[in-house]
Amino acid sequence: MSEPYTKKQIVEMRKKHIGPSCKVFFAKDPIKIVCAKGQYMFDEKGERYLDCINNVAHVGHSHPEVTKAAMKQLELLNTNSRFLHDNLVRYAERLALCLPEKLSVCYFVNSGSEANDLALRLARQYTGHHDVITLDNAYHGHLTSLIDISPYKFLQLGKEGKKEYVHVAPSPDIYRGKYREDHPDPATAYAKEVDDIIKKAHKNNRKIAAFIAESMQSCGGQVIPPIGYFQKVSEFVHKAGGVFIADEVQVGFGRVGKHFWAFQLQGEGFVPDIVTMGKPIGNGHPMSCVVTTKEIAEAFGATGMEYFNTFGGNPVSCAIGLAVLDIIEKEDLRGNATRVGNYLVDLLNEQKQKHPLIGDVRGFGLFVGVDLVKDRTLRTPATAEAQHIIYKLKEKRILLSADGPYRNVLKFKPPMCFSMEDAKMVVKEIDDLLTALEEVTEIQSDADVDENNKKKRKEPTEQEESSSNKKGNVNRQRNGVDTESQKVSIKRHRT
Amino acid sequence: MSEPYTKKQIVEMRKKHIGPSCKVFFAKDPIKIVCAKGQYMFDEKGERYLDCINNVAHVGHSHPEVTKAAMKQLELLNTNSRFLHDNLVRYAERLALCLPEKLSVCYFVNSGSEANDLALRLARQYTGHHDVITLDNAYHGHLTSLIDISPYKFLQLGKEGKKEYVHVAPSPDIYRGKYREDHPDPATAYAKEVDDIIKKAHKNNRKIAAFIAESMQSCGGQVIPPIGYFQKVSEFVHKAGGVFIADEVQVGFGRVGKHFWAFQLQGEGFVPDIVTMGKPIGNGHPMSCVVTTKEIAEAFGATGMEYFNTFGGNPVSCAIGLAVLDIIEKEDLRGNATRVGNYLVDLLNEQKQKHPLIGDVRGFGLFVGVDLVKDRTLRTPATAEAQHIIYKLKEKRILLSADGPYRNVLKFKPPMCFSMEDAKMVVKEIDDLLTALEEVTEIQSDADVDENNKKKRKEPTEQEESSSNKKGNVNRQRNGVDTESQKVSIKRHRT
Repeated sequence: MSEPYTKKQIVEMRKKHIGPSCKVFFAKDPIKIVCAKGQYMFDEKGERYLDCINNVAHVGHSHPEVTKAAMKQLELLNTNSRFLHDNLVRYAERLALCLPEKLSVCYFVNSGSEANDLALRLARQYTGHHDVITLDNAYHGHLTSLIDISPYKFLQLGKEGKKEYVHVAPSPDIYRGKYREDHPDPATAYAKEVDDIIKKAHKNNRKIAAFIAESMQSCGGQVIPPIGYFQKVSEFVHKAGGVFIADEVQVGFGRVGKHFWAFQLQGEGFVPDIVTMGKPIGNGHPMSCVVTTKEIAEAFGATGMEYFNTFGGNPVSCAIGLAVLDIIEKEDLRGNATRVGNYLVDLLNEQKQKHPLIGDVRGFGLFVGVDLVKDRTLRTPATAEAQHIIYKLKEKRILLSADGPYRNVLKFKPPMCFSMEDAKMVVKEIDDLLTALEEVTEIQSDADVDENNKKKRKEPTEQEESSSNKKGNVNRQRNGVDTESQKVSIKRHRT
Repeated sequence: MSEPYTKKQIVEMRKKHIGPSCKVFFAKDPIKIVCAKGQYMFDEKGERYLDCINNVAHVGHSHPEVTKAAMKQLELLNTNSRFLHDNLVRYAERLALCLPEKLSVCYFVNSGSEANDLALRLARQYTGHHDVITLDNAYHGHLTSLIDISPYKFLQLGKEGKKEYVHVAPSPDIYRGKYREDHPDPATAYAKEVDDIIKKAHKNNRKIAAFIAESMQSCGGQVIPPIGYFQKVSEFVHKAGGVFIADEVQVGFGRVGKHFWAFQLQGEGFVPDIVTMGKPIGNGHPMSCVVTTKEIAEAFGATGMEYFNTFGGNPVSCAIGLAVLDIIEKEDLRGNATRVGNYLVDLLNEQKQKHPLIGDVRGFGLFVGVDLVKDRTLRTPATAEAQHIIYKLKEKRILLSADGPYRNVLKFKPPMCFSMEDAKMVVKEIDDLLTALEEVTEIQSDADVDENNKKKRKEPTEQEESSSNKKGNVNRQRNGVDTESQKVSIKRHRT
């Protein structure tokens, strides 16, 4: 075994051998993690971090049953799906049982991005159309075809970023969006926006292949669409000859507790045409899946073109996938997500009563967002404050992130074994930090807060480094025009 | 542990739950493999198959050192690359040491397809151009962006298959291509074709971002470009402001024996701007890599847009990658590839003396092709005969495939532990089969052979099922216009 590297050495080696676009958390003082167990990660000094962010380690870090399943299968065989193997069909059958009946045909691939790309190919082949409707702030993956449909990414590329075949609908965010919680029927209002897009597209002789949305937007700021929105959108999209793709890469596999899939929050009546999965599916093992209907799969097959994915559906990946499903069931992780998630939301709502900085608390199961605001009426995003909290929590050995278009939404998506005690502990720390922040704010003028804010942006000591880059802030910093206030004002007139 | 499924049950379950575009080998009587070791695979009855095709199981199926490395790391930690970890930088440094000095910056992803997609993104960002030059018969992956640059795939989509930004250069095949072994300088002649494409593109105000080619074409028919071709192409492409992408997904990691990368067959002087890796890199574990220069990586980073790949570069994948590199070295697999590969080529050349059906034997290390012809002068592809051999070898428990635009090239790419005895055994079987075939052919008229051929195409009992679909033959069969002779004649006037 080679000698371990110091953090400094790793940072130097990364500079030399890893693409500079690949960012680390807390760039100024990144964390070296050497092992992890359950909801805890440990650094090189043995310091324990509470992990509130790694939804990929779904059933808990380094779960022994996952390791056992992987090892057992690796010892026997790891090959491609052109040979018959029990694991592939056993896993496909198990997955299908977790889904509404009409979603019965699987394609196994290696990442959420591969899944979303294939979903687009399926949609286009089935419909014979090309255009895609996506939501504002959406992120669907790192591939060429997915940057195209991810405003979260392509807006960084300037006016040339949006392709003609892409149509962006407003995010159905009832806290910050166009139609808010005081609107009599935000679901219908947001769905009508999609219909308007379709009508406009048709006028321009464009045809809609698919509407794609995360069942709950993650990078977009933990946005929960109003109930009924997906059904209504689905009707409009079907009428236009398109299909509905539910991206469950971040939020699937029981994270919302009550349901196995987040799209099921929309009610029993709603079934997407295509569902994409990823991150938690293999507890960190590179695998993912697209599930669709018989009709769409047959249309894709009718071209005669083979779909072959070298690693997709190999017996090791399937063994791991089966182990993850077993653990979710055996350890009642959905039950835990509901119980702990409800408790976490209750605790956070108590904090909302106490702290004017908390504008909104929203979530289902262990997918929870806390929208920080400078002003509850204007809902001005408290970006610097969110970043401050993330950084301070890191000092307290708690890993939390902030995301959304303003990076002001504290984002909980921990391993599903997250406990009541964990929830209590992190909320207690947030309480202390908010109290301290509010004390400082009271004796500071607004200008001071802005100054503080700017200073932070110039020294991205926090998770900001990785998340802010997503929104192109480094670019703006380089151009010397980075001000939070400017950014907010640019966005606000749209909302 | 659940009861194992019968082959019939698996086939039924696949029909229900796996996309029909996902094909199996030998569709009429597919193989169920339950375990594998080294270069051998075992079916549910314990029957042993000699594996001549699975280049993914590079260091041998189920290598215990790979399993050990995976298990050891899975027990400790599997997380993303936003945390510092020794394995990521250790592996990146090791990979860089296997490459020419200027190729020093890595991006870790999950599949050869993800690698090629990212390579295109890097090329476009660096050059500011969009167009891509690809080779005829090339296959670079299953993603939307890669179907576009894979004539092997997009030609199946009819005239709308080729996008305007894609330019197809002739495959530098000196046996079947435009310039053959009797040409005084095929390297220059083929490179000039690329230059002509560039000039034509410029006339149409199009700008070349990249030339992409497998260092040796695999699906394209085990094509080995003449020495000097890449250098000359590279010069033309650089002059046009583009970059050279070497796709080593199939042929890298010492498969050619003498060199670690197949592009090095072109001589010391040649270094691509971007190299993509895949299949063998993790011995079946879903991982892959793009390596490029500091300049290209910096240009990609300068946009400020983060590149994050959830699973890419995780500590488990890197541990496995390191184990694979160790094994290649410790077990002298490159030496073995050279020795056994040379022996295999010698044996096959002996067969060529004996059997008129063998038109050409070509290869380096354990990447060898045998081009079967009905007529040595006309070089008429002996497609049905190749398929017959593949099928008969399967009965003898030997797994071999046939590929290339006419599916007439027997394709060896076995695990790197393939032995002299294995080579001898498979060539002996091929000898017997060719002898029998030639005896039949002598007493049959040409028409009979064609009839036999057609019959085979209607009953794809062989590997043909999976490989033929790649060329859209099922479609042609459905359209009722499938004749081998037609296909050949269509292609021939181009060569």
